[in-house]
Amino acid sequence: MTAASLPDLLAANDAFYAAFEGNDAEAMERVWAHGDHVVCVHPGWPPLRGWDAVAASWGALFGNGQPLQFILTGMQARVTGEVGWVHVEENLLNGPRTSTVAALNLFEAVDGSWRLVAHHGSGIATT
Amino acid sequence: MTAASLPDLLAANDAFYAAFEGNDAEAMERVWAHGDHVVCVHPGWPPLRGWDAVAASWGALFGNGQPLQFILTGMQARVTGEVGWVHVEENLLNGPRTSTVAALNLFEAVDGSWRLVAHHGSGIATT
Repeated sequence: MTAASLPDLLAANDAFYAAFEGNDAEAMERVWAHGDHVVCVHPGWPPLRGWDAVAASWGALFGNGQPLQFILTGMQARVTGEVGWVHVEENLLNGPRTSTVAALNLFEAVDGSWRLVAHHGSGIATT
Repeated sequence: MTAASLPDLLAANDAFYAAFEGNDAEAMERVWAHGDHVVCVHPGWPPLRGWDAVAASWGALFGNGQPLQFILTGMQARVTGEVGWVHVEENLLNGPRTSTVAALNLFEAVDGSWRLVAHHGSGIATT
């Protein structure tokens, strides 16, 4: 199984959400590529560019200490060469409230492992 | 210059915004790959999956007849093999109002041309 396999991509995506749910900054650090090219958009936030800014945002979010639980639906994944992406709806259970975020997670194979290079999440308006 | 070049990627991204500003459904059709794998998230919308759903959304948006003008800032682009992506802030001038959308545009080289396979836009909250 090469690093660029679809099962490995899905495992990397799972690792991202496990780190997110676990408020685990060290695991989140292992999920991402570290470079100026990475970009992260949290729902409603301006883009954070470069690993330092992205890492700081996770530190701030995890510092809130509010655990989130995700139920992922509508997952769609694709691998083209050394790039893979997953589009998914994050259904967040945050105490009694639920909300849904559409997310595009873009990975590149770096030294044999999928690393997240872009996460773009946006809230879905409820009607 | 191969299809997978960065200049061609930026030209394809420009073509996307030209079609958008021009309310030009035919030009938008040429910008996108046509398949079940494409996905489009307009700000606040749920994900639209597959070309038919994506095309219908552009038809509906263009049917409004309200021209938009974009000023693109913070552009960041990257090519890895046959995949390229552009992250950009769309500053929309819509009459007297302005708003900013963060967008991730993901392209694949298809038959020698960059085609859009994912567009994910999200409004940036103003404070």
